[in-house]
Amino acid sequence: MLDALFKPRSVAIIGASNNPLSIGHIVMQNLLDHDFKGPIYPINPKSKFIKSFRAYTSVSEIPDEVDLVNISIKNTLVPYVLEDCGKKGVKFAIVHTAGFKEVGEEGLQLERQIVEIAHKYGMRIYGPNSQGIQNSDPAISVYANFTFVPMSPGNISIVAQSGGVGETLKLHLYRIGKGIRMYSSFGNEADVSMNEIIDYYGQDEETKVIMVHIETMKDPAGFLEVASRVTKKKPILALKTGKTSEGTKAVASHTGSLIEQETIADVIFKKSGVLRFHSQEDMIDAAIAFSNQPVPKGDRVVIVTNTGGPAIIAVDECISAGLKLAELSPKTITTLKKLVFQEAIVSNPVDVVATAGPEQYGGTVEALFKDPNIDSLLLVFVTAPFVDCEGIARKLGELGRTSKKPIVCQVMTIEKWQEVIRLIREGNIPVYDFAETAARALSAMTKYGTFTQKKEPVYKTFKVEKKKAGDILARQKGKDKFLPQDVVFELLQCYGIPAVKTVKVKKEEQLGNAAEKVGYPLVLKVDSEKIVHKTEVGGVAVNLKAKKELVSSFKKMARKFAKYKPGYILQEYMSEGQEVIMGAKSNQGLEPTLMFGLGGVFVEILKDVQFRLAPLSEEDVLEMIRSIKGYPILAGARGEKAVDVDKLAEILIRLSQLASDFPEISEMDLNPVFALAKGKGAVVVDARLRIVR
Amino acid sequence: MLDALFKPRSVAIIGASNNPLSIGHIVMQNLLDHDFKGPIYPINPKSKFIKSFRAYTSVSEIPDEVDLVNISIKNTLVPYVLEDCGKKGVKFAIVHTAGFKEVGEEGLQLERQIVEIAHKYGMRIYGPNSQGIQNSDPAISVYANFTFVPMSPGNISIVAQSGGVGETLKLHLYRIGKGIRMYSSFGNEADVSMNEIIDYYGQDEETKVIMVHIETMKDPAGFLEVASRVTKKKPILALKTGKTSEGTKAVASHTGSLIEQETIADVIFKKSGVLRFHSQEDMIDAAIAFSNQPVPKGDRVVIVTNTGGPAIIAVDECISAGLKLAELSPKTITTLKKLVFQEAIVSNPVDVVATAGPEQYGGTVEALFKDPNIDSLLLVFVTAPFVDCEGIARKLGELGRTSKKPIVCQVMTIEKWQEVIRLIREGNIPVYDFAETAARALSAMTKYGTFTQKKEPVYKTFKVEKKKAGDILARQKGKDKFLPQDVVFELLQCYGIPAVKTVKVKKEEQLGNAAEKVGYPLVLKVDSEKIVHKTEVGGVAVNLKAKKELVSSFKKMARKFAKYKPGYILQEYMSEGQEVIMGAKSNQGLEPTLMFGLGGVFVEILKDVQFRLAPLSEEDVLEMIRSIKGYPILAGARGEKAVDVDKLAEILIRLSQLASDFPEISEMDLNPVFALAKGKGAVVVDARLRIVR
Repeated sequence: MLDALFKPRSVAIIGASNNPLSIGHIVMQNLLDHDFKGPIYPINPKSKFIKSFRAYTSVSEIPDEVDLVNISIKNTLVPYVLEDCGKKGVKFAIVHTAGFKEVGEEGLQLERQIVEIAHKYGMRIYGPNSQGIQNSDPAISVYANFTFVPMSPGNISIVAQSGGVGETLKLHLYRIGKGIRMYSSFGNEADVSMNEIIDYYGQDEETKVIMVHIETMKDPAGFLEVASRVTKKKPILALKTGKTSEGTKAVASHTGSLIEQETIADVIFKKSGVLRFHSQEDMIDAAIAFSNQPVPKGDRVVIVTNTGGPAIIAVDECISAGLKLAELSPKTITTLKKLVFQEAIVSNPVDVVATAGPEQYGGTVEALFKDPNIDSLLLVFVTAPFVDCEGIARKLGELGRTSKKPIVCQVMTIEKWQEVIRLIREGNIPVYDFAETAARALSAMTKYGTFTQKKEPVYKTFKVEKKKAGDILARQKGKDKFLPQDVVFELLQCYGIPAVKTVKVKKEEQLGNAAEKVGYPLVLKVDSEKIVHKTEVGGVAVNLKAKKELVSSFKKMARKFAKYKPGYILQEYMSEGQEVIMGAKSNQGLEPTLMFGLGGVFVEILKDVQFRLAPLSEEDVLEMIRSIKGYPILAGARGEKAVDVDKLAEILIRLSQLASDFPEISEMDLNPVFALAKGKGAVVVDARLRIVR
Repeated sequence: MLDALFKPRSVAIIGASNNPLSIGHIVMQNLLDHDFKGPIYPINPKSKFIKSFRAYTSVSEIPDEVDLVNISIKNTLVPYVLEDCGKKGVKFAIVHTAGFKEVGEEGLQLERQIVEIAHKYGMRIYGPNSQGIQNSDPAISVYANFTFVPMSPGNISIVAQSGGVGETLKLHLYRIGKGIRMYSSFGNEADVSMNEIIDYYGQDEETKVIMVHIETMKDPAGFLEVASRVTKKKPILALKTGKTSEGTKAVASHTGSLIEQETIADVIFKKSGVLRFHSQEDMIDAAIAFSNQPVPKGDRVVIVTNTGGPAIIAVDECISAGLKLAELSPKTITTLKKLVFQEAIVSNPVDVVATAGPEQYGGTVEALFKDPNIDSLLLVFVTAPFVDCEGIARKLGELGRTSKKPIVCQVMTIEKWQEVIRLIREGNIPVYDFAETAARALSAMTKYGTFTQKKEPVYKTFKVEKKKAGDILARQKGKDKFLPQDVVFELLQCYGIPAVKTVKVKKEEQLGNAAEKVGYPLVLKVDSEKIVHKTEVGGVAVNLKAKKELVSSFKKMARKFAKYKPGYILQEYMSEGQEVIMGAKSNQGLEPTLMFGLGGVFVEILKDVQFRLAPLSEEDVLEMIRSIKGYPILAGARGEKAVDVDKLAEILIRLSQLASDFPEISEMDLNPVFALAKGKGAVVVDARLRIVR
């Protein structure tokens, strides 16, 4: 419960000062400028007054209750004042002061110490090294933050790991006259966490959309849990920075690999329905649309314009962003043809031409609202100097206020027609500078619309031999290693994952018998945990058609790999089928990440691979398979047969079940899996599995 | 010579009117508002005065010389007034009036008629259906355009096919207080062409950067010629809209296929060094950087910030946009460490921290300017309320004025510190709202820097048997068709393009002899212009190891394809090598387009293919090959051997020479070409070639 943080009844400022360049002074000024609805108590042992406020030497001296303190004194002094605060019964302490975890071991110790002190008294720490919080609720109006962007009420709440990014987000809303609801940049996250804040915003009735900036997720599992809950009620828009390895290095040193950080964030966003953005501007533009407009029921957009060129840009961008151009219903076409000028183009885009007045432009939009073939509208409007532009804007505003379909607008105008923008915005229609931006915002809303309409996923659990698999793994315990292939195949069998017929051999004498079991043509592979890339080192011989060939290949390998004392396996040779690769990777505190792609160069060079977080519903897994760029190959492009995608989906779900059941499986690759023709299934040909501890 | 258009000494307005909503009135008002430096003559047979100007009934009545007329009367009246203008000796007629080519056949006739009339008198037509022109040169100050964005002097010139897009571009420069040099939106392009305008801007000393908006290129060859010339002197930034098929449909109906339009525009931009952008905003942001800053000498950027988060975004975006993070020289590191606060991070990004004042922030930038390891600077600056922000801005402005290295800046601030933005901009440092934008602008400048530093391409011409090839083609003339494969191989041989050993057979009796010539193992292929996708229909049998296999395959095909009365070919079987595909396609009025990619799904499904315009220099062709995403496959990824990329390059150049020499070759595919190991060459296995007329 963060009420005393975001809705404090009183605030004390430890480090308040008459020096206008001090953090304490700035926070106090911000509280005053925004008319905080509660008492402010400056704490400063050296001054009697701060501004016109009586100053106290310590919180203990304050005669009333204190919900929140803002601390901006020297880092080493923080523990002492926290003791006072604790005794006083303060509920939250925003620690602006830096010089904690971010400066190294000593700082980390200090940070742990202050949290300990706080918790001793049931107090919570926000920060340290934090910017602060804001809540624009007129009944509270708290700006306990040392930044400078003025606050006004709105319905967008922001939580930003970087104060600088948070400030940029606020700034751009401010510039277009848009308020915010709550704001928070939490610094080192020693106690109050990002996830708690998102959860709190989720429960806040007045927050309609949440913007999140993340550099590193401190608690991915917690984020997944909270975000999954919140996105059911309202959209979460996320910007995850530090995407390139250079960018991540700039974030901080950390344990997991760079790619892992990115992949985990990405699969969590996908799983929880968080909308990911790749620029601050795109996220802000989408937030503005969400803040004003209903979510579209589908992806069919109509573009209305009074100038041709920008509408073409809108089309390009809508299509690129995954929207579809709506086909106007015959009824709409009839209505419009009667309404617009002869030069107008009644199609999609609808070009009402520059001479269109309120009746033509407004009437067109009105007719399109009623068309059941249309899910959303994108308007392009230039204030042509020869028509009644304010009249058009007034009409659009009126329509906007009653619309059940989302509508966004690019307006091209100058100060002279400022009223135009005001009138359109008054109708809750977001106004953008560029058609591209409007299109992208609409696309984000459409994605969220699709997400909210998805039915609750059903996670199928296959009947498997879990106990037997557990026993197999238990026998391998104790070291961090790759398991022998026959053991892996045994495990796969327990989970109903089909593999090619495989027989293990150690010596040449066993070849005859083994080959008989497998049948020709067959494949001979070396099998040793020391040899990882078998093909590259000559450890695989394929399409061996008779015993003579088999023995000769065996002898060659036996010579080559003698030093490793390896085993060998014989497998049936798959002469057809499409190679794919599947994988699973454990995540600390989270379900495993599943991977799917076409094999070989498609994964390694073209990076055409998809990741998802377990568990996987059937819908998830089919969507995952269809999301690879090479999917048409599986679907049967170029005259080739479609493969058994349903079976691939089933294997992925079984793999996910296996990986979830045994967290000691740190990584697992089925590579290749041969996908056979539709109805013929798929088989694993090679598999690697590593356990830890 | 467009001087009388962009620098008219006098302007007559045909259709001038006292109705403030008329085009004639608006153009006149624009001329007056911008204090045109020459006489204005309103023409209106019905009014004695327009505003306070004496009106004339026709241009012939004007007692002085007239350079330019603006016409906005009814379309059918335009021919009559043009006769008057011609007789009067008017040099340019801007026709605003619509109702010409864009409305169909009748309009097209009218359009042809007005051009004819104009040319009879040595007059030129600008338009029709055009917005007009502007020139901010203070000695001229002509705003012969009916739009509304106020004009002020600058060094960016704009030419936009769409008036709405042109207006958007102007608008955003205006909003940040940036002027333009010249502007032009040319409508139907019946006479004065986009290419002429670009050429004119190219010659204008005061134009430092050119922005172009294109929907369809009327004269691609002309564009290539002009752009290639101009980009040597100044950057051309281009936005080509109508990229998606939906977008293109919205542009207009046209002859060539959708993809062709896109591909041709793209190869022309690449060939001529035009910088292509995919959003209006990106183009404007880059134009602003070019307008103010020198072009970087290399791709090594340093980021300086006083707030962490946005700098990470800058890093991500710089890397994504192809820049590299500079490594600071040891000398710079020493200097900075002495200069900045202890909490600062001396690395790249350099984080001077929020408490940095003018000495720290300014001094850092100064030191970085001197570092030879650095080619460009990206600054992130938040106006922290506790430091001397104006002092920092003043210092940055001073540094900006003398800098030889390009520098861009993201500033986060509000009205209170408006002076900060003014001071920085005064130093010619472009100020952006977002780090992403600043990074992308810098990347565009760096690309142009690379282009200008490229040495003049050398086009090698191989000694080939052109005459013999011409004779072969001459024999095939007369129809639009695919040539038989043996003929294609003969042509390839004339141009020194190696192909696999191939022998033609018609009957079973010839198989023995032919097979002896080719040698086993071999491939049997059906050969008929009626069978295009041979593999899919069972017209290819590979790896035939003996006569028995060959005969049996032949019989099967002979039965299957009997109705086509096909020929057959025998070829050596390529058991190794990497398949690639090469192609050439003729372009009307332009050299052919060359194509390169990995074969099969890589081209058809993953669209991993590159196009370039002939001729190809060795540098071009290597760059082209390296630009496919799958290039690592050719370079020897995953333990496989690198292929003979030099030979592939040579074949592409030879192919380009063949296609250029014979424009009657409308398309040609070498598919597949087998690239063998480095030093072993490459051979064409199959080829299709189509001639027209």
